[in-house]
Amino acid sequence: MIPKALLFDVFGTVVDWRSGIIRDLRVHFQTYPSKHEPEIVADAWRARYEPSMEPIRDGSRDYVDLDVLHSENLMTVAEELGFDLGVEEHQRWLIMAWHRLPCWSDSVAGIERLKNRFICASQSNGHLALTVNLAKYNQFSWDIILGSEIVRTYKPAPEAYTRACKALCLEPAECMMVAAHNSDLTAARAQGLQTAFVRRPTEYGPDQPFDLEPSDNWEIVAESISDLNEALDDLR
Amino acid sequence: MIPKALLFDVFGTVVDWRSGIIRDLRVHFQTYPSKHEPEIVADAWRARYEPSMEPIRDGSRDYVDLDVLHSENLMTVAEELGFDLGVEEHQRWLIMAWHRLPCWSDSVAGIERLKNRFICASQSNGHLALTVNLAKYNQFSWDIILGSEIVRTYKPAPEAYTRACKALCLEPAECMMVAAHNSDLTAARAQGLQTAFVRRPTEYGPDQPFDLEPSDNWEIVAESISDLNEALDDLR
Repeated sequence: MIPKALLFDVFGTVVDWRSGIIRDLRVHFQTYPSKHEPEIVADAWRARYEPSMEPIRDGSRDYVDLDVLHSENLMTVAEELGFDLGVEEHQRWLIMAWHRLPCWSDSVAGIERLKNRFICASQSNGHLALTVNLAKYNQFSWDIILGSEIVRTYKPAPEAYTRACKALCLEPAECMMVAAHNSDLTAARAQGLQTAFVRRPTEYGPDQPFDLEPSDNWEIVAESISDLNEALDDLR
Repeated sequence: MIPKALLFDVFGTVVDWRSGIIRDLRVHFQTYPSKHEPEIVADAWRARYEPSMEPIRDGSRDYVDLDVLHSENLMTVAEELGFDLGVEEHQRWLIMAWHRLPCWSDSVAGIERLKNRFICASQSNGHLALTVNLAKYNQFSWDIILGSEIVRTYKPAPEAYTRACKALCLEPAECMMVAAHNSDLTAARAQGLQTAFVRRPTEYGPDQPFDLEPSDNWEIVAESISDLNEALDDLR
């Protein structure tokens, strides 16, 4: 069945967060030198991402957006690794690095083309301002931005998927989750959505140990967002 | 000051609701003949729009979306004027006429061009699914869809403007409300937003008695959305 809407994961699937964060950490360390490589700091910062969302998923903490979580996580990492976050303005600039991440090379043209036939929605853990800023930074647009601020929780909580479909007035089976992460697709399928795996083998750096292969029989497995268009034709 | 984001009213400013509703009523009346002209029914249906939002604005009714209000209003009008709404499937199709309204001729190209320089957001009383369906129907897209479902109230309630700016992480003065309705702009300015009036002298039919002229010294007065781009240059 051809879906009506494609729901895109953003961090890792559409944008290359690691390169973007490393780039901006390198700039920060020019003013506040660090004994750590920016790669180490970027990975340590990102490692706190999933655990920091857990209290919101399980309801023990009220929803706060990713700017808040990224800020808290950065402060923890700076303390643990021992580097200088600098004055408040510089800290803020660094946290906002997540609003100016570069796209993978196929993302802009791929989404533009898919928009001719499908509702293309972001369904990210990012909030509205972050997701629109990423799109403006890279000069593309979504048909609609969904994501954490709309569904008031973080993936892979079940409501993150069901509430997104509901916001579009579509049945889960009419929607397809597009992600580079098997865990995201597993959770989406459990709620009845169709699934497309996009391979991003260097999202976590050159030695990425996971998400290199599909872990299940996803409806689509694609090498890029550009490839999705043809793969969706084959679904007929 | 050049704004960072343009917040667009949709019904009347971007899309021509009256022609679209008349067109679909005409189709409906082919199956269920009516003694009333579709123009009369369309105007009666729309006349209930503002009063039906009032209980939500003043807090005496919880937020419901426009599909619900359009459905209730249609049933009232059908009863009052005495025409047949037909089987449930036909009723539903008629209510969904608000999801397939045609754009004014300058809207698609105008918004596409403005997106090169500004965040272009819808800030409509429409909900997410309705607003994205209008955009897909007319083959354009917003950078971000805001509106009633995000702000949980209806314009011109003050929160409709302040919460929209907040969702973008922008100050009100960094945002410009774009509308064909003086009342919308009056309410937006009261919350500190910049304002642009777009003249739509036939929105309410050939003898429209109001909103023909700007009622205040709005930052911009434009004849079309295409004209906005140049007018925004003059703001510098």
